Amino acid sequence: MIRLKLTLAYRGTQFFGWQVQPRGRTVQGCLETIVSRMIGQDCRIIGSGRTDSGVHALGQVAHVDVPAAKAEIPWQKALNAQLPRDVAVTGVRRVSETFHARFSPSIKTYSYTLWQEQGYVLPQRGPYVWPVSPLDLEAMARAASGLVGEHDFAAFQNTGSEVTSTIRTLHRIAFMRGQHPGELVLVFSANGFLKQMVRNLVGTLVAVGSGSRSPADVPELLIAADRTALPATAPAQGLCLERVWYADPQWNR
Amino acid sequence: MIRLKLTLAYRGTQFFGWQVQPRGRTVQGCLETIVSRMIGQDCRIIGSGRTDSGVHALGQVAHVDVPAAKAEIPWQKALNAQLPRDVAVTGVRRVSETFHARFSPSIKTYSYTLWQEQGYVLPQRGPYVWPVSPLDLEAMARAASGLVGEHDFAAFQNTGSEVTSTIRTLHRIAFMRGQHPGELVLVFSANGFLKQMVRNLVGTLVAVGSGSRSPADVPELLIAADRTALPATAPAQGLCLERVWYADPQWNR
Repeated sequence: MIRLKLTLAYRGTQFFGWQVQPRGRTVQGCLETIVSRMIGQDCRIIGSGRTDSGVHALGQVAHVDVPAAKAEIPWQKALNAQLPRDVAVTGVRRVSETFHARFSPSIKTYSYTLWQEQGYVLPQRGPYVWPVSPLDLEAMARAASGLVGEHDFAAFQNTGSEVTSTIRTLHRIAFMRGQHPGELVLVFSANGFLKQMVRNLVGTLVAVGSGSRSPADVPELLIAADRTALPATAPAQGLCLERVWYADPQWNR
Repeated sequence: MIRLKLTLAYRGTQFFGWQVQPRGRTVQGCLETIVSRMIGQDCRIIGSGRTDSGVHALGQVAHVDVPAAKAEIPWQKALNAQLPRDVAVTGVRRVSETFHARFSPSIKTYSYTLWQEQGYVLPQRGPYVWPVSPLDLEAMARAASGLVGEHDFAAFQNTGSEVTSTIRTLHRIAFMRGQHPGELVLVFSANGFLKQMVRNLVGTLVAVGSGSRSPADVPELLIAADRTALPATAPAQGLCLERVWYADPQWNR
């Protein structure tokens, strides 16, 4: 067998998330069906992590093992010819078996797009943004600086996950411009994220930005490690898995 | 009656274009249904022009006359609350009855987005781009300069329109960056456009860019005024009505 690293983009709106499950179409399911047919046997596509129902990706990474005899297939072209229009393979590379999409990542980057324009949401952007009231960016930046660093993010994890440790290092929260002047993009980089952690971080930052919480509450939220004390989780549609970085530079190409 | 100027954005993918017609949902139809219900009588929404099935808009302009008693309705909010997610009213202004969305415009601007990245189309951008082979931009720029100016654009008009004159002034064709590095956006400004004129201009420019036509052919195409000599019309999904400009500056606010 040889191992292929796949880089994937998808529009999450009509997927029940990444992971195969009985009740709806998933990105992993679409890929496994196609690859299995191509190699004539069952296969498992391993993603860098799950994305929830409705969450988008520009740079999800996965790997799959295929028989050596299939190495010469023009994989990207063949997969894109068969995939539905809301998923695309943006790159395929042959990698060594030491590469593992889920266990090798060193940093992941997610973006979350807020829509601040009042009175309307642009239909072209609606599926990718969360409409919010005008926000106090300075208060949000102060709250963000209290979240960056190594912390126990237990309070920012939704139920239903199986992790052993809830300690993560959040390297950076960047505030950026979006495609439209009314957009504010929050970019999160960490050595890993808990279930719905980005959406809980965004929910908290937006609560601070709209004045219903104070930046001074943030350290307390982290220490209390109590999910129920947290503002509501931000909706899925604003979230996008931007990039998965690996420690070995050759795996980032 | 008072006259309202509406500025509209829509995602054209699931519309049979702007104009009301029996066989499918249209932007004009959606708006007329809602406004008629609000004012308790039939109404007609006049657009700056039709857009074809699948064509998008960021700045379509329309006007509608409503009873003076309804002037104080918060029109933008009320319309957006009732419109489907693929149309939005981005602005509403009360204007004098000398304003006419279709007859007053001085310049219209359309964009057309080409996708040049080979091997995949980003799912987030697929509904808004036309995937093409790598293009020779210099040849396209030379062809474009032969199209700019006042010309008889009869060759660039598809059948089924009722105009008396096919002479238009094409003020500018700009080549711009798109949202994604693989995108090339062509921006067309003119004092008016014939039916499918932008899509025929794009079809011709792409034929030049891919080497199947020479920039030197362009003057001949204009003079021959023969639609059948022209390269294929570019598909609808890359096209977007960006902006409608009026001679009176107060109408552009």
